[in-house]
Amino acid sequence: MIKVIFFGLGEIGRQIARLVLKKKELEIVGALDLAPDLVGKKLGDVLGLNAPDLNITDDVDGLLSQVRADIVLHATVSNLTVALPQITKCIKAKLNVISTCEELSYPYYRHPELSSELANLADSNGVSVLGTGINPGYLMDTLPITLTGACQDVQRIKVTRMMNSSKRRVPFQKKIGEGLTPELFRKMIEDKKITGHVGLVESIAMIASAVGWKLDEIRELLPEPIIAERELATPYITIQPGQVAGLKSEAHGVKGGVRVIELEFNANAAVQDEYDAIDIDGEPPIRQKIIGGVHGDLGTSSVIVNMIPRVLKSSSGLVTMKDLPPVSAYL
Amino acid sequence: MIKVIFFGLGEIGRQIARLVLKKKELEIVGALDLAPDLVGKKLGDVLGLNAPDLNITDDVDGLLSQVRADIVLHATVSNLTVALPQITKCIKAKLNVISTCEELSYPYYRHPELSSELANLADSNGVSVLGTGINPGYLMDTLPITLTGACQDVQRIKVTRMMNSSKRRVPFQKKIGEGLTPELFRKMIEDKKITGHVGLVESIAMIASAVGWKLDEIRELLPEPIIAERELATPYITIQPGQVAGLKSEAHGVKGGVRVIELEFNANAAVQDEYDAIDIDGEPPIRQKIIGGVHGDLGTSSVIVNMIPRVLKSSSGLVTMKDLPPVSAYL
Repeated sequence: MIKVIFFGLGEIGRQIARLVLKKKELEIVGALDLAPDLVGKKLGDVLGLNAPDLNITDDVDGLLSQVRADIVLHATVSNLTVALPQITKCIKAKLNVISTCEELSYPYYRHPELSSELANLADSNGVSVLGTGINPGYLMDTLPITLTGACQDVQRIKVTRMMNSSKRRVPFQKKIGEGLTPELFRKMIEDKKITGHVGLVESIAMIASAVGWKLDEIRELLPEPIIAERELATPYITIQPGQVAGLKSEAHGVKGGVRVIELEFNANAAVQDEYDAIDIDGEPPIRQKIIGGVHGDLGTSSVIVNMIPRVLKSSSGLVTMKDLPPVSAYL
Repeated sequence: MIKVIFFGLGEIGRQIARLVLKKKELEIVGALDLAPDLVGKKLGDVLGLNAPDLNITDDVDGLLSQVRADIVLHATVSNLTVALPQITKCIKAKLNVISTCEELSYPYYRHPELSSELANLADSNGVSVLGTGINPGYLMDTLPITLTGACQDVQRIKVTRMMNSSKRRVPFQKKIGEGLTPELFRKMIEDKKITGHVGLVESIAMIASAVGWKLDEIRELLPEPIIAERELATPYITIQPGQVAGLKSEAHGVKGGVRVIELEFNANAAVQDEYDAIDIDGEPPIRQKIIGGVHGDLGTSSVIVNMIPRVLKSSSGLVTMKDLPPVSAYL
């Protein structure tokens, strides 16, 4: 039995927990969350499922020192600087960590010093630390990296995620600005209240590292609003024509003045044709498409849980998806 | 510099060699082939390119004992029993091996005892041995395995390779029976002069192992002729209506009486819409398509050469694509 502690039981943490409950070889031994409305509640009540009789606690030090476990599934924030103290405590308790923290998926570019400290700490405690999820971690990095494996030469990699946001959770729909006026959207972008998709920079840096490209720079564009042309009803809101239907996040990896990596994340309520596409200009060229796209939350919880065996088998240190054998379901 | 020996300089071996020539970090130090029409010839003449001044030799023991190298790129036959003495010599010379031998891509199912001997031999000589290529090795195993990584649950995996054979090498076109009468095709199937695609069984066994399915059985169907409905002109032959345009190879992984893995390899001169498709019935479902498909020979040479860094970094033993970090181009 693999003993698992949850750290973070927000929407994604709960999806992860529900999947863990289905796996016979995984045993839940602890549940951490810092949110006052969760602390003290029974895990099963929060999940709405039969679960081990555990209360969610915010006593991180207490739990980590008292409970023996193999791995922490960490799902709190996107920002590595904020997540770091949490992850550090897990490492010092000699626990492997898989985290949804977007900036941890390939931290070497944005946080080179933190990465090297984290790598040393993990290594000296004999555990592995991985940041992953559906994106970053899979659709816009691991998968295009794997597809270049069939190529003798590659000139350019373009990845497009086209998602109908009206099928997603309400907090996600809010986060991308659905129903705002374009003016308010731009103001919220300026004030960093809307950040767009976090992870494009990490995905580009991971791809470049895998294929051996030294980039001049990684350019992340400000998110652009997608404006509704007709009324769009979503479970969250009815969007009027002229209001924001969602957003497009875009980033480019530039080498020799040329965009060699282009990532586009487009989530809006007007999308009819959902897909995840990877286009590689190379020898041979590869034109890949996942028709209908991959459901984000289901994908993230899957990748997190499916990587458990890989992380436990990995040599210690800070690892990324390109360093470990391919993720697969285990059934 | 990584020192490389070629073992086998037929059509695929030459494509591999030409790609190796383009890689600055790879140095060619030896060239083996057993074919009398190649032995004694200069490597550069056979490749039609500037190459190191080496003669192709059939003196396997002599070359392996005299030349220091890191890895052998082996491209001779599909049948592991036939390839084994060649690979064994390389291992005993303490050389890592990457081979196109289809049955080596996942040898544990068809050759359990050979596999375990090979694993022990590689391990005791401190080298790694990998069988791979575009298929088996990538399109029908590594890629679907990787795609299940985004799934919480999987009920069924179907992979279809639809290829227009008229774009391929003449020996390939011959091998799939182009221009034969259906009667002669069936006779050649009976006499095992046409075998269809080798590797479906290996791909199914690798997928099942990755996702943890215990199969009742793997059923490989006899190749079926695809009959031309109109005249089809190929660089090899003009196929008349009623003659064989190519073939379909199919195999199924059966679990609990249900086909949970279905692989179909279809190569014929009538194909208009080339593609490689992976359909996963799961949570979430995945409908993936590589539009135009992946060119087989380019793909195989790419995967073989792109795996060199992974194999050199691997711990010793017999390894398969699902055990090593994702293949990627290195440029």
